[in-house]
Amino acid sequence: MWLRNCWYVIAWDHEIPAANEDKLFTRRVLNEPILVYRTSDGNITAIADKCCHRHAPLSSGHREGDNVRCGYHGLLFNAQGLCKEVPSMDKPPIKACVKKYPIAIKNKWVFVWMGDPEKADLAMLPDNFSCDHPDWVNVPGYMHYETPYLLIVDNLLDFSHLSYVHANTLGGSAAIALAKPIVDTIDDDGQRGVKVSRFIPDVPAPPYYKRFQNFDSNMDRWFIYDFLFPATLLMHSGGRPIGDAADDNSRAVINHSCQTLTPETDTSTHYFFQQSHRAIVQDTTIRHNMFNTLLEAFNEDRSMITAQFNNLSENAENDMLPLHFDAALIRFRKMLNEAVQSEKNTLLQTS
Amino acid sequence: MWLRNCWYVIAWDHEIPAANEDKLFTRRVLNEPILVYRTSDGNITAIADKCCHRHAPLSSGHREGDNVRCGYHGLLFNAQGLCKEVPSMDKPPIKACVKKYPIAIKNKWVFVWMGDPEKADLAMLPDNFSCDHPDWVNVPGYMHYETPYLLIVDNLLDFSHLSYVHANTLGGSAAIALAKPIVDTIDDDGQRGVKVSRFIPDVPAPPYYKRFQNFDSNMDRWFIYDFLFPATLLMHSGGRPIGDAADDNSRAVINHSCQTLTPETDTSTHYFFQQSHRAIVQDTTIRHNMFNTLLEAFNEDRSMITAQFNNLSENAENDMLPLHFDAALIRFRKMLNEAVQSEKNTLLQTS
Amino acid sequence: MWLRNCWYVIAWDHEIPAANEDKLFTRRVLNEPILVYRTSDGNITAIADKCCHRHAPLSSGHREGDNVRCGYHGLLFNAQGLCKEVPSMDKPPIKACVKKYPIAIKNKWVFVWMGDPEKADLAMLPDNFSCDHPDWVNVPGYMHYETPYLLIVDNLLDFSHLSYVHANTLGGSAAIALAKPIVDTIDDDGQRGVKVSRFIPDVPAPPYYKRFQNFDSNMDRWFIYDFLFPATLLMHSGGRPIGDAADDNSRAVINHSCQTLTPETDTSTHYFFQQSHRAIVQDTTIRHNMFNTLLEAFNEDRSMITAQFNNLSENAENDMLPLHFDAALIRFRKMLNEAVQSEKNTLLQTS
Repeated sequence: MWLRNCWYVIAWDHEIPAANEDKLFTRRVLNEPILVYRTSDGNITAIADKCCHRHAPLSSGHREGDNVRCGYHGLLFNAQGLCKEVPSMDKPPIKACVKKYPIAIKNKWVFVWMGDPEKADLAMLPDNFSCDHPDWVNVPGYMHYETPYLLIVDNLLDFSHLSYVHANTLGGSAAIALAKPIVDTIDDDGQRGVKVSRFIPDVPAPPYYKRFQNFDSNMDRWFIYDFLFPATLLMHSGGRPIGDAADDNSRAVINHSCQTLTPETDTSTHYFFQQSHRAIVQDTTIRHNMFNTLLEAFNEDRSMITAQFNNLSENAENDMLPLHFDAALIRFRKMLNEAVQSEKNTLLQTS
Repeated sequence: MWLRNCWYVIAWDHEIPAANEDKLFTRRVLNEPILVYRTSDGNITAIADKCCHRHAPLSSGHREGDNVRCGYHGLLFNAQGLCKEVPSMDKPPIKACVKKYPIAIKNKWVFVWMGDPEKADLAMLPDNFSCDHPDWVNVPGYMHYETPYLLIVDNLLDFSHLSYVHANTLGGSAAIALAKPIVDTIDDDGQRGVKVSRFIPDVPAPPYYKRFQNFDSNMDRWFIYDFLFPATLLMHSGGRPIGDAADDNSRAVINHSCQTLTPETDTSTHYFFQQSHRAIVQDTTIRHNMFNTLLEAFNEDRSMITAQFNNLSENAENDMLPLHFDAALIRFRKMLNEAVQSEKNTLLQTS
Repeated sequence: MWLRNCWYVIAWDHEIPAANEDKLFTRRVLNEPILVYRTSDGNITAIADKCCHRHAPLSSGHREGDNVRCGYHGLLFNAQGLCKEVPSMDKPPIKACVKKYPIAIKNKWVFVWMGDPEKADLAMLPDNFSCDHPDWVNVPGYMHYETPYLLIVDNLLDFSHLSYVHANTLGGSAAIALAKPIVDTIDDDGQRGVKVSRFIPDVPAPPYYKRFQNFDSNMDRWFIYDFLFPATLLMHSGGRPIGDAADDNSRAVINHSCQTLTPETDTSTHYFFQQSHRAIVQDTTIRHNMFNTLLEAFNEDRSMITAQFNNLSENAENDMLPLHFDAALIRFRKMLNEAVQSEKNTLLQTS
């Protein structure tokens, strides 16, 4: 169940080697192997990592300037995926080319468009501003899952798990599970998905927050996020000492997080994430402590979701018991399913 | 080909943690994950290791008294499998429960009933007396097979393999293969299966027996066992010096063995076993030497059966050549097959 | 897509233990496990490595003279695959036997015939003379691939890959890819396949050749090989300094190579190979240096072909772009495909 006409993150900008390095970066998205590299003009290009001749991976070859030469029989492709040279032929056949993927770079995320190139629309890029913003600081993260991406979508759309999976890391007291979120539908400006808002009044400050400063009173906490097609979470979260006014952030902890899932295969997923805090927090050790705590928590998620996946029998979904927790994930899965079906119908009509 | 209305051993009693330990024991039977734990009243309970909500394994959660809380979203289940609490709900939905399995403990074996709970019948438990009897001593064993359980059933129903697989361990001289067993059908008191009786007169004492005492003459040996549904072997075996009368056990070696197979998946199996000798043999090192010899022999079986399994092509069974050795296994497989078919027919009629 | 009525190499002669060794050699060919051993008369026999009784591998048993006893239940088979003994039976059943494979040994290659034994024809053996000839020396090699054999066939039928895969080992300058081969069909004397001839004039001597002597001028190089059913390459290759007459080999490097592929399963392959040079080259370290270079090159092939295989999606073949490189492999695959279809049709008519 993959939406195709949308942007998937294939890499953090810093993962792609420089144009003058002799390295080729490859990653599989929606089960398609994709080669991503920088050209000398500073752009990034993405082409199928599969020679059109005998399907050897181009990443097993090497760069020649802005071109890539297949390491098996020497076909040379340019950054548009066009074959420029077949050894011992005057001129490559017209059909000699590999698929070129539309690409976009925004705030350090490198996106590929997996559907009809003519529909590639920059307005559909998510607003991952805190990944690269002077007012915010973070450490970027990447994680690989051996599970289908939808199980991780479920996890991100139901924060009641914080109270149980992350009791010792992110400060998930039972109060979080007790706080019912407000779930709204988002459908505008090319952005579709759900908005989940959760307010938890008067709870102890989590150890996680005490990295920023010592809180001697309880806090009001909030988690407000958009979860957008295909699978991107953009979240404002934080907490302020009880009693402080809702517009007084002088003693508040304020975070912004961007997380996104990219299916690798039917049963494996790429996970790109960062959680930012305000750049005015000058102690740089906090940044790394925060990242390590986040990583520990995300490993807790991965352990649980992997255990869940290994526990699923065939057609398990029909046998699950929906609960109020699932409001956001059910709505999101339904919207996504309709969008996928709509794409399929369009394909049928045009073919 | 799994019989469901019967008792399968899921564990040795000592494998289940104490009620006050913070550990959860889980094991897969007939491809169903099952959580087994002790309650404070001293009983053992078995429930599906699969939360009804999103199918996370409950064994990834933790105990709260006699209840278990799911580690993903915090649902709390009691020892009957009933959901007692869903975070932030006044009362769990009526459908919120996990499957409860009938359980029985007999002579240190913990059994689960995998079929219709209303048909659970204690009279169908095997008489594994020597597992826990003051007159007998043993060391309990567990082994995991990466093969279907029926290949191990075949092995246990044809002891002619002792002469070849265990030539160096259990003292399987060619005479054992030469001795034709008597095969009878067992069908009473809830016990169904076959009885296999084999007498081997006048053979050298196996090194295995010389642990008990030095024999300077040949021996008469015997192996008499019931092999009962679903896959349990209960065996009297032994040997006495030739010339000693059939009722004179003064110099005899006398053993009783209980072994049982529990399918884990289509291609893997749990194997629980012990071989007892008389408690009047006071040298405790013999007990461990006997166990180590048995374990070595069972490893020989596992190597051979695994090699056999890896050698099987599709539909191999139709291509096998039945021999007289196979009398017991053919009869048992036929009985088991009929019982399985009968269960299926009953299910069809009631649904 | 396996041809059956043909000879496949199952082993180098030296891989089969001596008749007096207690070892049993087994290898899988066309997904059939085959036991190969020497009898006391100096012959080699090949029988199914699968007891007719319960399909245990006979290689898990042991030899008794020229017979093999199954290690599971003791059936004894002779070198013809006939069962000579079933423990505790007067006489084995008539049906008790395992498949006997026609075998041929020629120049140190041990061949099995995988089709109708009545059609086994020694005239179909390839002329692998240099594997065992007083005028030639070599080090025999074996390699295992985790890919289908046809991908390796493709590789061997298109030497333009030398320029890219083996740029640093076999001296594959771009000139090799530029030299178009002449492709002829071979169809006589039981030998079928293609002849590929490639001449590359006036190129630098590869480091590979400089092991034999120092060349201070460019060379004319040639590769001329037969690629025969089922998958055997027999190649004359070499080079002489430019200016030397075509019949003057006084300063030439002259090699003969025999390589053959045997499918193990649908996705794995045995690869037997050697490359000989003239025995008049007396320096024996050259022999091993040549072998090590060849092995390094064949590892380069295996890395590339394995990467290619892992990159193939379903029905990838329909999506490949044929190029002039593929002339030989397309012709060979077509011939092989027709031969396989013809075998199938014959089977249908006779059954």
